[in-house]
Order: sequence, then structure tokens, then C-alpha cells
Amino acid sequence: MKVGGKHYRTVWMEGSVIRMINQPLLPHEFEIVDLPDHHAVANAITTMVVRGAPAIGATGAYGMAQAAQAASPSAYCAETDAAARELAATRPTAQELFYAIRKVKAAIDAARDFESAKAAAVQAAQAVADASAKACEQIGRYGADLIPDGARVLTHCNAGWLACVDWGTALAPIYVAARAGKNVFVFVDETRPRCQGANLTAYELAGEGVPHAVIADNAAGYFMYSGQIDLAIVGADRIARNGDVANKIGTYEKAVLAHRHNIPFYAAAPTPTIDFDCAAGADIPIEERDENEVLYVAGRDDDGTLRRVRIAPAGSRGRNPAFDVTPAELVTAIITEKGIFKPRDLAANEGLLRA
Amino acid sequence: MKVGGKHYRTVWMEGSVIRMINQPLLPHEFEIVDLPDHHAVANAITTMVVRGAPAIGATGAYGMAQAAQAASPSAYCAETDAAARELAATRPTAQELFYAIRKVKAAIDAARDFESAKAAAVQAAQAVADASAKACEQIGRYGADLIPDGARVLTHCNAGWLACVDWGTALAPIYVAARAGKNVFVFVDETRPRCQGANLTAYELAGEGVPHAVIADNAAGYFMYSGQIDLAIVGADRIARNGDVANKIGTYEKAVLAHRHNIPFYAAAPTPTIDFDCAAGADIPIEERDENEVLYVAGRDDDGTLRRVRIAPAGSRGRNPAFDVTPAELVTAIITEKGIFKPRDLAANEGLLRA
Repeated sequence: MKVGGKHYRTVWMEGSVIRMINQPLLPHEFEIVDLPDHHAVANAITTMVVRGAPAIGATGAYGMAQAAQAASPSAYCAETDAAARELAATRPTAQELFYAIRKVKAAIDAARDFESAKAAAVQAAQAVADASAKACEQIGRYGADLIPDGARVLTHCNAGWLACVDWGTALAPIYVAARAGKNVFVFVDETRPRCQGANLTAYELAGEGVPHAVIADNAAGYFMYSGQIDLAIVGADRIARNGDVANKIGTYEKAVLAHRHNIPFYAAAPTPTIDFDCAAGADIPIEERDENEVLYVAGRDDDGTLRRVRIAPAGSRGRNPAFDVTPAELVTAIITEKGIFKPRDLAANEGLLRA
Repeated sequence: MKVGGKHYRTVWMEGSVIRMINQPLLPHEFEIVDLPDHHAVANAITTMVVRGAPAIGATGAYGMAQAAQAASPSAYCAETDAAARELAATRPTAQELFYAIRKVKAAIDAARDFESAKAAAVQAAQAVADASAKACEQIGRYGADLIPDGARVLTHCNAGWLACVDWGTALAPIYVAARAGKNVFVFVDETRPRCQGANLTAYELAGEGVPHAVIADNAAGYFMYSGQIDLAIVGADRIARNGDVANKIGTYEKAVLAHRHNIPFYAAAPTPTIDFDCAAGADIPIEERDENEVLYVAGRDDDGTLRRVRIAPAGSRGRNPAFDVTPAELVTAIITEKGIFKPRDLAANEGLLRA
């Protein structure tokens, strides 16, 4: 998608170098980081220079391709095996990362010699990234049909192209609709505590020229009851077999409000997000993160310096659940790259939807 | 209430000087400001050194008493009239401020000479402040009966003693319950955009030794559905005749969530907050404030300097409604200094409740 009028992906490979957007600096500074080897790539995943499951998956795939290029001809199989373990250890619960690493490693192992293994690794990594971008674009095409001309859309957190390789999940339908000439206005929940809405979603929308306003998470209810929101689209971190949706903290609140006001509430996600082995949302563990994410806010001061400020008294503690579960009954539909489904219909379509 | 173990009111008079807690510095610095004359008092109200309707009312009353002390014996009536106009102009919609100023001015005008007018003014101002503190304490006594031992209470924004003269409105029942030996734990909504929860409510609770945790406004729903919140108490900026409650933005969201989870949701307010001339919440205008309150966050940096940081991209805009209206059907009861009322019963009790 566009930054300053130029097209970017979140992560890509140029020769033997992996390049990515340095996301912790956004929206205040736009910087491309060059990663010379897969150790640097692993570190970039760990330190969240790149974040978002699809983007991390593609990064891991490129890291594997890079490790293959740098391997010694006589030991490339063992060396890429070590690289796979190093890259997989960066995020212990990232299904898409494991899947991507396996894909590239399989291509390396199937090649007849070192030279063809190197080529196969690059090709496989590129295929992972391209497939991810294509799935998101397809989510955008399906989802765009749900956005009427003139729609005012609420979104929460960042489920945009910066979390993917390109296009995004929740934001892809908005981008497709906007590029097709529809007028779309987006209310961007700032999404405390980490402010991914204010930091990243607003940045993406500005780059694409989509009109938007950042709002406090407290204000979504007001804009709903005053008739200013037509539909809501969010992403998903994990979707249970019964259609319950785990996503960024606050998603549940907005879904309850949308339900009260008969406002359609959509979750957009690629099919690997659906965990058919998880019966219901209650089985999804909710991570509670560092209280300092609540007690502090990071941003850019008036002098242009990036820094964090504490908003709570020195002695006070915080509680910081990072996700919540929205029950299927509050989700109008789930937008995937294979079509749009009622949450309760996922299980019946397992054959189609299971990757 | 207590700060560092010592009892304070928000504002008070010592001799001819008015002293108040400098609230914009909280929770990071505790500073008492001395105001030598009523011009300085008017300025302190305008610049929000003091905020909260009851606290502003008492401040205006003290400012009138101060103006009387400083007046010339031959022109004190006209001079205090000018002071009344100056003080009333600081906050054009503050009913309690106008009421307090009128009270003191009436005492001045009824006195037989300058000397007795000076004494009467001080006495009247003190009576306004004491009555305000007493009303809040009484709200606390009534409300404490609604808080069982071991209760986990959600509150939003700051409706504590810093917004009043003492005790507070929403927080008064918590303080009375805690002082009576009940175990109470408070979930403090940080309350973006201005963070009065994280800044002020957490500060008050820490001073009184009430266990609490600051949470992102997004997290209240999670704590409700996971069974960790037993009741909610909020303040009110204005209550319509039909029981609809206007309060800080986000109150409506929390009320909708509490209703879904059958969690009692109380509004606490002194009776002058009830506007019997306002038929319903839809008639209450909602102020939209500066977008920069959303686009920036203020706090203390790691070096100890108070500063603000921008969280949104340079080009992005914000929308910032400051209040919302919670319909009476979502409010379990309204706690006043004259007792606890179902929202729909306010009108039938107008004779009792009208100040």
C-alpha cells in the first residue's frame, strides 16, 4: 500500500538483504531497516520491528531464504535446519510463522543440490509473501461489497497492511472500496493501551488518502447512538470453531455496542486464523501483559523526540489483558479470502476453510 | 480526604488567602497554590487549577468572601457586585458556581455595614463549602450500603473529592465503605482522552489506601464478562428529569456493558445535578472539545518532566465528544445526599429533590 504516494510492502527481499518498515517508529518516522542475515531477522521479530501474524510469517520465510543463500555448500541442510529453529523460537505461539518456515525448509530439502536449493528457497519465500498479500486482497474484494458508498466505518486496533504483507485484513475492504471510488470515512479507535489505532491505522489511512478521525476508545458508543457509524470491521487473532472471535482488548466492548444499535459488526481474517481444534472462545487463553503498557503512553514530544510518559501515580498498579473474546452471536459475519461466512457456519465449512 | 496521611480539602480559605490543590500537576506533583485575591481565583477557575462543579462552586464562594475583605468600606456593595460578575464569567455553564456566588453576595447585601458584611461573606462561603462536603459525605453513607464487603467496583473518570470539596460523589461510597472496614477493590478506567481516572482517581485511592488497578477503557468489558466486577459507580454532569444521565464520554459504553452482564450501575450526584427543566437526555447538548486532547497524551517522562506526546500521525484529525448520555433504563439507581432513587422516580420526587 502507499506511503507518501509510493507503494510498499511491510517486508521484502532485495538480493540477499531483507528490508522492512521499522514499525515502532511509526507514525512519527518512516524508516526502512536492512537486515543482512537471518540472525538480524530473528532479532527484528523478537523486538517487534515487524508485528502482525501474516507479516511475521513472510518475514520468517524470507529469513529462511536468506539463511540458504549464506549457507556452506557442504552443510546447507543442517545450517538451514538450525536457522529454522532460531527463527521459530522468536514467537512461540505464531502458527503462521511455523507454517512459513516449514514451507521454505521443505523446498530446500526437496532441491537436488545446493544451487537449486538456494533458488528454491527464494522462490518459496516469495510465494509465501505473495500468497499472503493475495489472500488479503481477496478479503478486501469480498469485504468491499459490504461497504456502501458513503459508509462511515468503525475499526479497532490495526488490522491493516502493516500487520500483513500488503492490503491488511480489516482495512483491506476499506482500501478496495476506496480505490473503487466509494466514499468511505473511518472512525479509528485509538486502541489503548498500545495505541495501534492512533499509531498505525491512522498512518495507513493517511497514506492511502482515506478520510478518517482518531477517537478515544470511550467515544465509539456516542458515535453509534448518534447515528454516525454504519458498520464496524475488526481483525481477529484467533477464531474458534463455534465462531467466537479473539481479538485486541476492547473488541468485545465495541461488538456489544454495535449489537445494541443494530450496526453490522464484521471480523476479517485469513482462514488460518480459524482454529477448528478450539471448540469455543472460552478455551482461548487471554494473555495479560505488562502493566506499564497501561500506566505509560508512548509518542513524540513537541521537540520531536520519541518518548513515553507516565499517566498514573507512582504507586498505582495496572491490569492489562491484551485480548478479549467476542461471542459469535455478536459477529454479523466473518470475511475470509474464501468468502464471507456467518460465524455459526464455520464448522459446517471446515473442509473448505481448513488450510 | 487524605494525601500522604494528612487531611486536605480541594480548596479552603486561610485568613485572606484562598488555597487550593494545583490539579493539573496531579498525580505527579502535589502543590498547594495560594491565591491572594479574587482575580487570581477567577484565573484559577478558568485555567482549571480547580475543576469539578462542587469544587468550583466553593471556590467561587471563597472568591466572593475574599473580594469582600479587600473592598473599600464606602463601595463594598458595588465592588463585590463586580467581583461576582468576574467570577461568574469564568465558566459560563456552571450552575453550582452561580448558586454559590449568589449565596455569598446575598449575605453581603443583607449585612448592616461593611464590617458585618465582611464577616457574613466569610461565614456564607464557609457554609457553601461545608454544605458541599456534607452532601458528598451523605452520598457516601447512602451509597456505602450498596457496596458489599469484598466488592470489586468499576468507576469511570474522576468523581472524587478533587472534583468536590471533600469526599466526592462516585468515590464517596467507596471511601465510607473502606473506612468502615469493608474490603473494596476499584477498577479505575483511565478515561481517555484526558485520563482523569489514571491521573486523579488512582491518586485519590492511593492516598486513602484503597486497593485499585488502572485499566484501559477497552478492558472493562473483559473484566465484566470474566466475573471480576460486582458493581459500577460513576458521577454525573447533568441528570434529566426522566433519569437520563449525562457524564464523561465512555460512561454510556460501560453502562451498556454492565446491563448486558446484570451488573448494577449507579450514578452518584448531589441533587443540584438533577435538571428538572430538562425533559430527557436528548435535550442535553454534548460539547465537542479540541481534537488535540485525543491526538496527544500528557504525563511525566522518565526524567521527571511533565510533557505531552503525540500519538497520531501529523496529518490525522480527531473527533472528541466530551460527554455522552446514558439512558435511564441502563442506570440501576441514582445516589444523592437525599437518598437513593430509581431514575424513573426522580420526577415524582421533584418536591424533595429540587434544591
